[in-house]
Amino acid sequence: MRLGVCYYPEHWPESMWEDDARRMKALGIAQVRIAEFAWSRIEPTPGEYDWDWLDRAVDVLAQAGLEVVMCTPTATPPKWLIDRHPDILPVGADGRPRAFGSRRHYDFSSPSYFEASRVICKAVAQRYGNHPAVAYWQTDNEYGCHNTVVSYSAAAVQRFRQWLKARYETIDALNRAWGTVFWSMEYRSFDEIDAAIATVTEAHPSHRLDYRRFASDEVARYNRMQVEIIRAHSPGRPIAHNFMQLFTEFDHYPVARDLDIATWDSYPLGALEEQWFAPEVKQKYLRTGHPDFASFNHDVYRGMSKLPFWVMEQQPGPVNWAHWNPSPLPGMVRLWSWEAFAHGAGCVSYFRWRQAPFAQEQMHAGLNTPDNRLDMGGSEAATVAHEIAQVEAAHADANDDVRGKVALVWDYEAKWLFEIHPQGADFFYPRFAFEYYSALRSLGFDVDIVSAHAPLDGYAMVVVPPLPIVPDDFAARLTASGAHVVLAPRTGSKTDSLQIPHNLPPGPLAAVLPVRVWRVESMRPNVTEPVQVNGDAAGNGHARHWRDLIELADAQHATIHARFADGHPAYVQSGKMHYFTSIFDESLTRTLFARIASEAGLSPTPLGNDVRVSHRGGIAYVFNYSNATHTIDGVTDARFVIGTREVAPQGVAAYRMT
Amino acid sequence: MRLGVCYYPEHWPESMWEDDARRMKALGIAQVRIAEFAWSRIEPTPGEYDWDWLDRAVDVLAQAGLEVVMCTPTATPPKWLIDRHPDILPVGADGRPRAFGSRRHYDFSSPSYFEASRVICKAVAQRYGNHPAVAYWQTDNEYGCHNTVVSYSAAAVQRFRQWLKARYETIDALNRAWGTVFWSMEYRSFDEIDAAIATVTEAHPSHRLDYRRFASDEVARYNRMQVEIIRAHSPGRPIAHNFMQLFTEFDHYPVARDLDIATWDSYPLGALEEQWFAPEVKQKYLRTGHPDFASFNHDVYRGMSKLPFWVMEQQPGPVNWAHWNPSPLPGMVRLWSWEAFAHGAGCVSYFRWRQAPFAQEQMHAGLNTPDNRLDMGGSEAATVAHEIAQVEAAHADANDDVRGKVALVWDYEAKWLFEIHPQGADFFYPRFAFEYYSALRSLGFDVDIVSAHAPLDGYAMVVVPPLPIVPDDFAARLTASGAHVVLAPRTGSKTDSLQIPHNLPPGPLAAVLPVRVWRVESMRPNVTEPVQVNGDAAGNGHARHWRDLIELADAQHATIHARFADGHPAYVQSGKMHYFTSIFDESLTRTLFARIASEAGLSPTPLGNDVRVSHRGGIAYVFNYSNATHTIDGVTDARFVIGTREVAPQGVAAYRMT
Amino acid sequence: MRLGVCYYPEHWPESMWEDDARRMKALGIAQVRIAEFAWSRIEPTPGEYDWDWLDRAVDVLAQAGLEVVMCTPTATPPKWLIDRHPDILPVGADGRPRAFGSRRHYDFSSPSYFEASRVICKAVAQRYGNHPAVAYWQTDNEYGCHNTVVSYSAAAVQRFRQWLKARYETIDALNRAWGTVFWSMEYRSFDEIDAAIATVTEAHPSHRLDYRRFASDEVARYNRMQVEIIRAHSPGRPIAHNFMQLFTEFDHYPVARDLDIATWDSYPLGALEEQWFAPEVKQKYLRTGHPDFASFNHDVYRGMSKLPFWVMEQQPGPVNWAHWNPSPLPGMVRLWSWEAFAHGAGCVSYFRWRQAPFAQEQMHAGLNTPDNRLDMGGSEAATVAHEIAQVEAAHADANDDVRGKVALVWDYEAKWLFEIHPQGADFFYPRFAFEYYSALRSLGFDVDIVSAHAPLDGYAMVVVPPLPIVPDDFAARLTASGAHVVLAPRTGSKTDSLQIPHNLPPGPLAAVLPVRVWRVESMRPNVTEPVQVNGDAAGNGHARHWRDLIELADAQHATIHARFADGHPAYVQSGKMHYFTSIFDESLTRTLFARIASEAGLSPTPLGNDVRVSHRGGIAYVFNYSNATHTIDGVTDARFVIGTREVAPQGVAAYRMT
Repeated sequence: MRLGVCYYPEHWPESMWEDDARRMKALGIAQVRIAEFAWSRIEPTPGEYDWDWLDRAVDVLAQAGLEVVMCTPTATPPKWLIDRHPDILPVGADGRPRAFGSRRHYDFSSPSYFEASRVICKAVAQRYGNHPAVAYWQTDNEYGCHNTVVSYSAAAVQRFRQWLKARYETIDALNRAWGTVFWSMEYRSFDEIDAAIATVTEAHPSHRLDYRRFASDEVARYNRMQVEIIRAHSPGRPIAHNFMQLFTEFDHYPVARDLDIATWDSYPLGALEEQWFAPEVKQKYLRTGHPDFASFNHDVYRGMSKLPFWVMEQQPGPVNWAHWNPSPLPGMVRLWSWEAFAHGAGCVSYFRWRQAPFAQEQMHAGLNTPDNRLDMGGSEAATVAHEIAQVEAAHADANDDVRGKVALVWDYEAKWLFEIHPQGADFFYPRFAFEYYSALRSLGFDVDIVSAHAPLDGYAMVVVPPLPIVPDDFAARLTASGAHVVLAPRTGSKTDSLQIPHNLPPGPLAAVLPVRVWRVESMRPNVTEPVQVNGDAAGNGHARHWRDLIELADAQHATIHARFADGHPAYVQSGKMHYFTSIFDESLTRTLFARIASEAGLSPTPLGNDVRVSHRGGIAYVFNYSNATHTIDGVTDARFVIGTREVAPQGVAAYRMT
Repeated sequence: MRLGVCYYPEHWPESMWEDDARRMKALGIAQVRIAEFAWSRIEPTPGEYDWDWLDRAVDVLAQAGLEVVMCTPTATPPKWLIDRHPDILPVGADGRPRAFGSRRHYDFSSPSYFEASRVICKAVAQRYGNHPAVAYWQTDNEYGCHNTVVSYSAAAVQRFRQWLKARYETIDALNRAWGTVFWSMEYRSFDEIDAAIATVTEAHPSHRLDYRRFASDEVARYNRMQVEIIRAHSPGRPIAHNFMQLFTEFDHYPVARDLDIATWDSYPLGALEEQWFAPEVKQKYLRTGHPDFASFNHDVYRGMSKLPFWVMEQQPGPVNWAHWNPSPLPGMVRLWSWEAFAHGAGCVSYFRWRQAPFAQEQMHAGLNTPDNRLDMGGSEAATVAHEIAQVEAAHADANDDVRGKVALVWDYEAKWLFEIHPQGADFFYPRFAFEYYSALRSLGFDVDIVSAHAPLDGYAMVVVPPLPIVPDDFAARLTASGAHVVLAPRTGSKTDSLQIPHNLPPGPLAAVLPVRVWRVESMRPNVTEPVQVNGDAAGNGHARHWRDLIELADAQHATIHARFADGHPAYVQSGKMHYFTSIFDESLTRTLFARIASEAGLSPTPLGNDVRVSHRGGIAYVFNYSNATHTIDGVTDARFVIGTREVAPQGVAAYRMT
Repeated sequence: MRLGVCYYPEHWPESMWEDDARRMKALGIAQVRIAEFAWSRIEPTPGEYDWDWLDRAVDVLAQAGLEVVMCTPTATPPKWLIDRHPDILPVGADGRPRAFGSRRHYDFSSPSYFEASRVICKAVAQRYGNHPAVAYWQTDNEYGCHNTVVSYSAAAVQRFRQWLKARYETIDALNRAWGTVFWSMEYRSFDEIDAAIATVTEAHPSHRLDYRRFASDEVARYNRMQVEIIRAHSPGRPIAHNFMQLFTEFDHYPVARDLDIATWDSYPLGALEEQWFAPEVKQKYLRTGHPDFASFNHDVYRGMSKLPFWVMEQQPGPVNWAHWNPSPLPGMVRLWSWEAFAHGAGCVSYFRWRQAPFAQEQMHAGLNTPDNRLDMGGSEAATVAHEIAQVEAAHADANDDVRGKVALVWDYEAKWLFEIHPQGADFFYPRFAFEYYSALRSLGFDVDIVSAHAPLDGYAMVVVPPLPIVPDDFAARLTASGAHVVLAPRTGSKTDSLQIPHNLPPGPLAAVLPVRVWRVESMRPNVTEPVQVNGDAAGNGHARHWRDLIELADAQHATIHARFADGHPAYVQSGKMHYFTSIFDESLTRTLFARIASEAGLSPTPLGNDVRVSHRGGIAYVFNYSNATHTIDGVTDARFVIGTREVAPQGVAAYRMT
């Protein structure tokens, strides 16, 4: 468990650097990320590099005993490069290039940019690849931020055609797979295919899904190029990328597979404001963030990182980029930091050392204010550093890996598919996955978030949010795992080509679940449907958004546990397979998850909305997001590692489980 | 009364065709519409036609005893044609061509497309014009769907200039008619005139209205071309087009005049979700549709069809294209079918035979599921077929024409004008026309919906929703009809050039109604104005949206029946002319309509919101949209033709009136 | 105090002119504005002027004894000019030229238009510069209307680069001032700089602010060109421009400095509907307008006019351009007219003489209806004319200047800055300034609205709405004034380059206010924070939108008068400086302003929401916006100049103060 910080020596007079480094070290910072936006200083004139300043900055940090996370600067190509190669700019759905003047103004498919990136990455990797202080690398910065994955440039379309040719081989195969006979959309060659934008009404969903898959693959290809260059020139240094919460335009799993460390940038207050949460939820958690949001992301990136995942950027105070930017309550920076470690983080790195007084992010807090005084977040970071030292000294298992007994499947393609093909306008995949996660966390479970392609052995319970396209071996893996499995509606509802399965949904899962979804309906937000759970009045609730209307192919081997008022099944079980035909309200979801977990041999512990528990090594961590003190019962004083049984609002406690 | 179905042989293996045809016939289907989206199969390569498959498909249907409605395939030009003639693509108000990849991607003004359409229509008409199974034709498909009437292409602007020259002859006449002296918008020649888009603030309303008229005329011109080709090659076969509910970008009347059958595509649930109805209305009628919406459209197309109108596409289950797509309640497919027949339909044709598992509409239900089992809608269609046979066998007048005693004027130009020139942001013409229609239906009346140019003889009551431009002979026809006439506010408020009449509104109607509208005001949605009806406390209510402030030119020959709280007249009568100066709430509208109808010698029968009655031949049909059983009083058991006096929710009954 | 009217002889048959002029005079009209949209009639063919009609129109008015306000016709360049010089069209943020077909379709930076404007202005000024009836001039019409100040044309970018070069001299200086090192946005020459649009995420705020400053300067440059031409050819005639309420895309102060009279166009009902007011406020003041809105604007333009300001266009009835357009209550046209005079207006000029029956504004009322009968507004104008004559005859001080003891600072740059850099999405500067103004007016004060650069001597109280960039001498002027000063949050929060001050906010004001704003937060609309005023239970309230979290640099010389529930200071005083750290609710704002005003030796007189009082010369004017009669106490009957102590709803009274 280490602390880090993001630092921009190029933003400050060189006279400040030594003092900055000294104070970082004194605060308990172990590593410093630099240079991810410094291209215009590294190469101020085309082809003429200026390494001097960066050499000196690295040396100053090294001499203070800090490790460096060196970045490739490709997220911000300089103006002269754009002027030389205007085709670098990505093209929006409106057909217009997105201009220079902020960041991420590049097209992953631009040959010019691919080549320019190669050159600058190689230059940086050669210069610092073997510097003793450079302990880690970061490629680029926040792929996908500002919706920059999907471009509609001529270069992208050209590469898309090649991608299609590789996938389908013949145009006839593509026509069949997509079903282009509908509306006379048949193609005679791959060269006739465009980007499926600006159409009169919705474009072909299979076409659109393939374009999204292609765009995602382009990110992985681009990142792989950088990784290979760094590996060649800086052997042995782990390589990371900082993913961004719910920037789901590309599949994070294949990118992470090429890396050593999956990291992410955690901004709990900005995320709360910008995500789907209802206004009253945004009000309630205004200055704390939602109790499950950072955790959800920790578990996402834990699940795809080879080494322990990191938080590469941790919110240290108010940010600048949300519609409204409140100030975190005192204690929250400490709480968020410990929450990351409790979920298995190897490092929490604060963004940024000192608030910059200029440019787009001048209202983004740092550990220090622009007038260089330690800010509230800085003080809390110091507390965390102190606590880490104490915990690590006393508990050899503090840095153990985290592994849950409950798995939740998380899938990027599902997000794209429901976006392209919603059938109900508010069918928003991340929200549904998050609600399931939140329900599991409210029952006290550590949750492993896994890809649909991940091994499932060893789990007692596997929860599958709506997963329209299931891998070929999914049914087999689910069954082989021995876990109780919860399948959400729409799971197995589409083939890999975005068609309806020949046997109707749940398609290949019908082999393990004797259900036929003969009709579906989506419901507007002001419509809910009462659900009656058999023999369990307490479990009644209501359903929202969607209903699969099902019939049982084999009624002898299936039990209907709940029905809608009109008699249609709401929840059916067959062996260890549990099928929900709708999205239930929060309370009913928790009730059913608890019931299924118990059947799976787990012990759900209801925690309510605002207290959360995580386990790492032999230590349980308790986080109090509420406004009232939370009392931990049944733990002797001696077992407390951090805090006491009385956990104050925004407080943290930790105790040995035995 | 016949049933039909829409079928796409090109979507299915040829091995399925015979069984499909056999099952259609067994279900009671009489006619099958085909080929409207099949261009890429008919002409897979430029100039090379492949008729074989279509010949075989037509033969299979014919051999099963089914009649064919053959379509021209022009709604979906194939990719190769677009690539050869990119000027086919329509241009949006953003100046950008709308791309290939869905449907209706053509500009009615494109010379290339006009010529290409001629060629393909002639080819299809020559091939099947005299095929014994081809009993009917459909031109194109759903003109106006996806806002495709108005294009801003160079070709459209060029033709607009010609259209203007034909209309105004000299540029001075145009300048005067439009009033271009305002803001120095004067033109020196027709060639200076553009499309009135992208202007700094609102463009000239007369200019915009003429552009809309021009675009509407282009649709009629294009359709007429197709009709002429079909008539030449397939004499004696009635020609239809399937209009779409409230797709009002073009005037349906002149297009219908060139056809034999006006048909429309009825999707009651999708329409409810996508139209103007309030959220609570959308919730209430979620799975039934609004009780008056399909009826309104039946009466619109009945009013413009030479032969009995058809429903060319009838919703058979959930659709895919609304924001939310619920499932119709059991019984609704039968109810909707009978409702169409009760309004005079010659045919109800379900869309589609079998749900396609691919492409944009894969979530659109058919009579059969994608795995080829009869779906709920299919079963109900079979019931309807059985019932038709029984009714027709016993009742010679079952197929009589429908004719009401109440006429409602429906006008497309009014829609455009209020869209261009609303003066109150929510002054939405179709809603106001619909509300008047609904009030009349709630009083038990059969309503003829007629053009402002239609003969009015024989009606007891004529209701005129806001009609800004009245035909020159309108006042004379209203008077000559002898009917009591209800005139809504803003009627007669504009000249043909979209100017204020020299005598102020109601312009030419002042000859028969001694009113001068000296001022108007529009009111925001949270403002209503109390209305006091003279001597009739029960009739009080409130007004919304709009007020005409009037003075009476001849107070001796006019009576003020209702006033606003500030004393301005709300409802004034002069002879048989009744003028409403505002849009009244639903209840007050019904009260006043009932009162005026009684004065006109009619017998209003209040039915409430959810039960509706229609009359055809000697038979009364009762439709129950409510959730409770409706009991029909005063009809002996023996008179029931369908059902009994107890009409279940979503049920239908029919009885002989004498 | 004079009445005027806007007249368009070119809209009417010449046969009507004489009667129009005669009736104007009879009504009490003294001056007539003409020709501001007449270019296509003045120069119907390129280079060929037609002065005859305009000569005759001016002569007809002159012969009736009316003075003429002659306008330059540059707000509506004719089509032939656009066709010759398409670069005249301004370019939107979407990169697309805004087209001909309405008005203001020109780019202030277009060299072609600058030259064409010179030529037409010179032609008009030469023709009428010495005409005896031409007493005043108006340049162009409503600069900024329809968001036409900021253009993104190539010409604008070219001039922006020159503007930057003039401001920064070297590119290094620009890079430093903006802080372009952030995100590698550094420029190597001025020629690399573009317009900061279409960027991937938000563009650089300093870049954007400079673009807005540049665009504003372009308006002043353009207007100055017109003024110089008019002064050269029409010496001695005062020159005006009609500004438009809250069209804040350019700084009105420098434009006004080049003029003699600042005028504005007052449309109280349209403004209420289109501005930020809550729906219930829009409902309440539907037919009166907000009691402080016109007044606010009167005081804005009074504050920048060398001669007494005018209302160049006064709403005379319903307008056409708001989303909804209600009819003013009887009496409101009179009330609005007197309200203008009470605030110091030299002229109220009604728009327009007669409602035009054609084109975009055909639904805009005039003093006469389109059928040429005097409308309600016309009658009220006649009443006002009569009353003016009486008041002026009896009261020599009726036309005195107005001067308040309370100043409110109003700043256009602040509007731009918060728009570019809001940090809280609803931080809307005009609303906050207006709310402070409204609170002061509710306490009975006459308010001088002044620029941040204006002298402040003689005021007892100065109120500063959020003013992020304060002039260098601001602190000194505030202190020297001796006034009690209220500073809103975010004041002094930015340097001139849009950076955070080195000492944090309030930056240079820290010299007179010992405060350090160490953190800020913005709050979403459903969040408010309770405020506790020390020892004053009645003064408690809540805060919205924003909090500055402050520490006191010198606690001995500062008093915390109010705190938030979490202890942070809400209101702190140091000497005569009063700092609000948040935006308080209406009631608390009034309470605190009253308290500070009393401390400043003023006598606040609470008037509630709907009655307002203004003072000019020795006369107090009372305006009743409520629905109930307002009784004026303590004034003898003999002192009443207009009306009596019982002021009816929508009524006006005036009495001598002594």
